[in-house]
Amino acid sequence: MSGELLEGTIGRIVPVDEDARERALAWQDDLTKVPGSLGDLEAFGVQLCAISGQCPPPLPSPGFVGVFEGDHGVQAHHVSPWPQEITYSMGVNLAGGGASVSVLARHAGADYRLYNVGGLKELPEGERIVNCRVAAGTADLSRGPAMTREQATSALEIGVRAALDAVDGGARALAPGELGIGNTTPAAALIAAYTGGSPETVTGRGAGANDEMLARKTRAVAQGLAVNDVASLDALGVLAAVGGLEHAAMAGFVLGGAAARVPVVLDGVIAVSSALAAVALAPEAGGYLFAGHLGAEPGLAVAIERLGLSPIIRLGMRLGEGSGAALALPVLTAAARIMREMSHFSDGRVSAEQES
Amino acid sequence: MSGELLEGTIGRIVPVDEDARERALAWQDDLTKVPGSLGDLEAFGVQLCAISGQCPPPLPSPGFVGVFEGDHGVQAHHVSPWPQEITYSMGVNLAGGGASVSVLARHAGADYRLYNVGGLKELPEGERIVNCRVAAGTADLSRGPAMTREQATSALEIGVRAALDAVDGGARALAPGELGIGNTTPAAALIAAYTGGSPETVTGRGAGANDEMLARKTRAVAQGLAVNDVASLDALGVLAAVGGLEHAAMAGFVLGGAAARVPVVLDGVIAVSSALAAVALAPEAGGYLFAGHLGAEPGLAVAIERLGLSPIIRLGMRLGEGSGAALALPVLTAAARIMREMSHFSDGRVSAEQES
Repeated sequence: MSGELLEGTIGRIVPVDEDARERALAWQDDLTKVPGSLGDLEAFGVQLCAISGQCPPPLPSPGFVGVFEGDHGVQAHHVSPWPQEITYSMGVNLAGGGASVSVLARHAGADYRLYNVGGLKELPEGERIVNCRVAAGTADLSRGPAMTREQATSALEIGVRAALDAVDGGARALAPGELGIGNTTPAAALIAAYTGGSPETVTGRGAGANDEMLARKTRAVAQGLAVNDVASLDALGVLAAVGGLEHAAMAGFVLGGAAARVPVVLDGVIAVSSALAAVALAPEAGGYLFAGHLGAEPGLAVAIERLGLSPIIRLGMRLGEGSGAALALPVLTAAARIMREMSHFSDGRVSAEQES
Repeated sequence: MSGELLEGTIGRIVPVDEDARERALAWQDDLTKVPGSLGDLEAFGVQLCAISGQCPPPLPSPGFVGVFEGDHGVQAHHVSPWPQEITYSMGVNLAGGGASVSVLARHAGADYRLYNVGGLKELPEGERIVNCRVAAGTADLSRGPAMTREQATSALEIGVRAALDAVDGGARALAPGELGIGNTTPAAALIAAYTGGSPETVTGRGAGANDEMLARKTRAVAQGLAVNDVASLDALGVLAAVGGLEHAAMAGFVLGGAAARVPVVLDGVIAVSSALAAVALAPEAGGYLFAGHLGAEPGLAVAIERLGLSPIIRLGMRLGEGSGAALALPVLTAAARIMREMSHFSDGRVSAEQES
């Protein structure tokens, strides 16, 4: 691909609307509650106003969960206890409606699709399956670039297109999800590269790495950063060198959502690592992001803090797929409904006067 | 009232089903996810099984939010900055659909009613209003018992009846809420009395007390505990001495839910103080409880810990009314849907085998 869609999308991303934010803050204080008493739910509502430019904000529903699937050359170092066949069988399971994110997306009233952007195997045809492989997995990031710049660009554009199509189809909030055995390793490498965090502080156990596996994984991350000399690379170069095809597609999905001015609700460590890539490519995209949840992976907290976000859900989840983001979608809708449906002190039926 | 309904309800409360809990734990581990990776969402699902005796559990929906309204003699000491007229005007607002809990209940697909169990004023007639006042507010708890035992019993039975009627009407989860200027003061007194916490550690700023007000409030709590000699009282005596009419009704609502074997989702400091009263009256009722959210009031964390609960939502809310519980209801339903709708490893389509 030429990268024209990616360039054009980045060019369309505008800063969120600070005037709408100001109006939203005043609006919140006129609702019949003690100002600030809904905590972060008020802040989420205000951010939805800044994103949309409207106060009260439009409902961020229905949502759409775009799940991106890929495999990883770095799994040669056995960085996950799960065999790579699981990427395929869980893909079939997810598209069939039986995975966690399938259930939680349905519960949120959100549609979902599985984009096979980089699995080792082609998925069977299916209603919710989009086979669009850029490659059959990445190369081993610990020995050189995981992807070429062209591959990363192609994956980014698949994500952009998925987001734009979803919004054209009526989606009013996007949540990027993923499937891919081994994909917390490139996520850790991306977080280290974009935030300057050390491999030791951002690499975690993913889906069950034991101590020895965690040591191998941390070493692979460190080698990947070194062998690819990531400090010398531009934003796209970093993503290509130590990311995954699904990470690149998720970054594109974030950029597409920001260009379409809809909120993008992130899941766990893979989604936030992809969001860091998106923000490195287009800093203004950061204003369209919500952290769906705070999971257990250590790099997640580092990345959420760098993105300046406050998690919607805090239940110790660490499943991935987009599950934490899907669970958060109804809370975000609640934040919008509070602003749209509560009565106002200025209506005169409830007094805002305190006794001195 | 004679207390027969209360006695009978307490007698009907059975321990939650530990056999169903065991089956639920095994069921969770067979779902196509890394065991434990849904964090507390798994624990909530397991508890729903123990409550219902079924695995997978029935959906805890639709929910029903019972909001109980009362006024408080202790407000003579100006323990809240808000005038008591607000209890009435917010009641009208809430029943009319414009309060936070009205919006969040609708969002959760939950019906709601406002029970005026102890407001200073009768509420106007309305579709969602039940006028059932036991008294026009309580007496000043810092100078003697806030209620007689008979008044507390009557309020408890109103709550029991509200819960049983809601379940008869199809509700499958209950959330107690409240309205009442000054009602975090009796809540703090109840938490201190039932947990042994000091007035200083459990008394907070409620809906905006300043430093001077907080000092007055803490002193009123300490005086209430001393003048009523709460250490010498039985569970009902404590509730009558330092509680409020809405606290008593909420305790009855908890007991009714436990007797009907449906989950009861608590809101903030007033709801959990009422739940402590319910558990003091009927220890087995504790198994039917969920902490809807972790708010800012210091007594809330003390009471949640005593009840052995883990909050569903952590967004720094401190509004009351039942708002945090209503926001939590869809998350609880998600926990049940995960158990009902995910596919299983034992179906053979996804392997649970790890590589060694």
